[in-house]
Amino acid sequence: MSANTKTLKVALLGAGNVGSQVARILLTDASALAARTGARLELVGIAVRNVDAPREVEIPRELFTTDASALIRKADIVIELMGGLEPARTLILEAIEHGATVVTGNKALLAVDGPTLYEKADAAGVQLSYEAAVAGAIPILRPITDSLAGDKITRVMGIVNGTTNFILDAMDSTGAEFADALAEATRLGYAEADPTADVEGHDAAAKGAILASLAFHTRFALEDVHCEGITGVSAGDIAAAKEAGYVIKLLAIAEKISVPTGGQNNDDGGTFTTGVSVRVHPTLIPREHPLGAVRGAYNAVFVEAESAGELMFYGRGAGGSPTASAVMGDVVSAARRLVLGGPGRSDSTIEVLPVLGIDAVKTRYYIGMDAADQPGVLSKISALFAENGVSIETMRQTVHRERDASENGSAASAELRIVTHRASEAALAATVEAINGLDIINSVTSVLRVEGV
Amino acid sequence: MSANTKTLKVALLGAGNVGSQVARILLTDASALAARTGARLELVGIAVRNVDAPREVEIPRELFTTDASALIRKADIVIELMGGLEPARTLILEAIEHGATVVTGNKALLAVDGPTLYEKADAAGVQLSYEAAVAGAIPILRPITDSLAGDKITRVMGIVNGTTNFILDAMDSTGAEFADALAEATRLGYAEADPTADVEGHDAAAKGAILASLAFHTRFALEDVHCEGITGVSAGDIAAAKEAGYVIKLLAIAEKISVPTGGQNNDDGGTFTTGVSVRVHPTLIPREHPLGAVRGAYNAVFVEAESAGELMFYGRGAGGSPTASAVMGDVVSAARRLVLGGPGRSDSTIEVLPVLGIDAVKTRYYIGMDAADQPGVLSKISALFAENGVSIETMRQTVHRERDASENGSAASAELRIVTHRASEAALAATVEAINGLDIINSVTSVLRVEGV
Repeated sequence: MSANTKTLKVALLGAGNVGSQVARILLTDASALAARTGARLELVGIAVRNVDAPREVEIPRELFTTDASALIRKADIVIELMGGLEPARTLILEAIEHGATVVTGNKALLAVDGPTLYEKADAAGVQLSYEAAVAGAIPILRPITDSLAGDKITRVMGIVNGTTNFILDAMDSTGAEFADALAEATRLGYAEADPTADVEGHDAAAKGAILASLAFHTRFALEDVHCEGITGVSAGDIAAAKEAGYVIKLLAIAEKISVPTGGQNNDDGGTFTTGVSVRVHPTLIPREHPLGAVRGAYNAVFVEAESAGELMFYGRGAGGSPTASAVMGDVVSAARRLVLGGPGRSDSTIEVLPVLGIDAVKTRYYIGMDAADQPGVLSKISALFAENGVSIETMRQTVHRERDASENGSAASAELRIVTHRASEAALAATVEAINGLDIINSVTSVLRVEGV
Repeated sequence: MSANTKTLKVALLGAGNVGSQVARILLTDASALAARTGARLELVGIAVRNVDAPREVEIPRELFTTDASALIRKADIVIELMGGLEPARTLILEAIEHGATVVTGNKALLAVDGPTLYEKADAAGVQLSYEAAVAGAIPILRPITDSLAGDKITRVMGIVNGTTNFILDAMDSTGAEFADALAEATRLGYAEADPTADVEGHDAAAKGAILASLAFHTRFALEDVHCEGITGVSAGDIAAAKEAGYVIKLLAIAEKISVPTGGQNNDDGGTFTTGVSVRVHPTLIPREHPLGAVRGAYNAVFVEAESAGELMFYGRGAGGSPTASAVMGDVVSAARRLVLGGPGRSDSTIEVLPVLGIDAVKTRYYIGMDAADQPGVLSKISALFAENGVSIETMRQTVHRERDASENGSAASAELRIVTHRASEAALAATVEAINGLDIINSVTSVLRVEGV
């Protein structure tokens, strides 16, 4: 490195799981980073709540400070890895005002306040990068914004929460019930003590909103995302899916949809409006689908584009080192820009598409039900589907005969499993309601969406 | 678009499978491209050998010209999609001299002359992009050069040839022999009339050289790549691999290796040199490995990095539209840079690591052999492995008894399948030679490398 190499001052906010790994890379890989950026990246300080807290990585004590604002004013690049809404939001705004390049991995904040933060950064002419906020180590933001910039994305389906993928994968391999698989995930450190944000799909919804914003050049907020978690998925659902050649995954799905301009049910004419919907729910996908091979706590994002066809990006979605890799990719890009000038990873011009609700979505459905074993059950049920405009693709019936102490000698019940063609949420809900009203039906045991076929 | 929007003149060289799709996108998606780049991309001409040849896409006849040099002199961006070495090389050099940004998908040329072309482009201060040259539509160059710029890649394993993956996948699913699977691939258009470049691994080797250059910031040429094709893979190999939980894939593998500075066999002390080796060969990988799920003509690149861990990028490796998507990603990036100024997708500083040959590589091996069914065979063979310093991990013996018309009543042979621990090419070769010299061995039926375990 020549004597007149530029120095860029880097401030780190937070020294937790990810922050401490970012500090490690900045401190130990200094010469490789200098070779790749053309600048010396000097870690000028790390803002933490408690200077004396134990850390995973050995970091010189004099780097720690509790005064984040003072640290930000010294920095060319500010890396925010505190997580949570506050003080992260205030400190990012301070960094933008100060003119520093900001790198963050804070998906919760971006999902809630992303649009405001992007606008403030644009207005101030500073870069705000956030590769680490979606799917951890997996490079997904640059492929979407740069590599696919000449193509048109039609759909994105992501396994973006490692905890729920670990639980569903364990249920699939061992036949365990949800509660037992969750307990195992907690024991192994894949689930937090309070797993609500993961198992209810809130974390996946936040990442879905960010992914959708990128893929469709339209800004989404968390409340635009339809969200269902995995707490209702039973061992029986998993077993039935497996038997039919499917695997159940929690997917965040963002897709472009055309709906009749006059309203959702005005199917028979007029003009169409194109919008985007984002939803998170447990989904049946064929076992041989690329997303079906994503095991354990791994993440993957499956992208469909007009010219490229099907693409998938796979890797670790969480963890200190993997997430630090994504953060450092943003830091190196930011440093190259600061050294060489010019634009950065440019967001495409924002093309505001209407945000559509779950009622605009048509998917295939899987419906499991427990019926009486009587002649005519199949015809009654299929008539009900037809009346509600839902077309059946496959129907399987398994009869269980149980010995019974009653006078009748034996009772019998039939397990019915139906996969439909594409139907709207409303049509499906009406069908399920009507089925529940039949006296020959003991219960509807599961209603799940099917994708990837 | 405002009246003073900049116009960038685009010249296309070649209107084949990929070129005609690029022309289609430039002609039909003009307004979306303008929104994303901030410039109008004007297709000023398409250089072809025969103006009147039939095309897949309807293109105004006046765009065609046979004078490629004159066309280049009019252009801001030159897209080379002619393929082959000449006249592609000369025309790319003309474009560089003229100061135009160059986008190419020409892997054959880059594998042979990449280093020269990159240097000429650097010296002239123009951008040379080539995302389409590796793994078709899969965004891999930007993830490696930008997203992983703050990390250290240790290994890259790619399924980078769709024809051979289609053939091996067909052999795996149907039990077909190589010749039949190749005939099927030819019939379906997945293999060319002369499939040599694909089935002998030459195409994969060219892509491996480009991938390795990117991943390790070191420049490789085609002759640095050890290359074995799939023509020797038998239905028996596939079946034996399947039984043991493996699938056979043609992989291009580039990895960082430390070897004793004093020489390959100087294992017991001294200093070590780090270098990079690139090799292409049929490989056994566990069926549950992410690369194991890559079916049909799909491609995938599996990357191991120090912090990020394991990543995989999956998609279509060939075809007009998918490859055109990758070309257009480069064109949009190039246009943004020309509009906004500044650096482009920057190659990291080149860090010249030594290029290592196949003799520096240690892998696990799978060896299949046909032995006499006699007492003591296993102990003789395992002694031979030990003498040659190759450690056995698993050994399976299957005895086949066949009725025989001879006086002995029945003859018997044993099929032996051995998987070794990591061993050098030299140690393995010596072992196989020694085994072939045993009179109790009828034949060594296969020697294949094992990865991903």
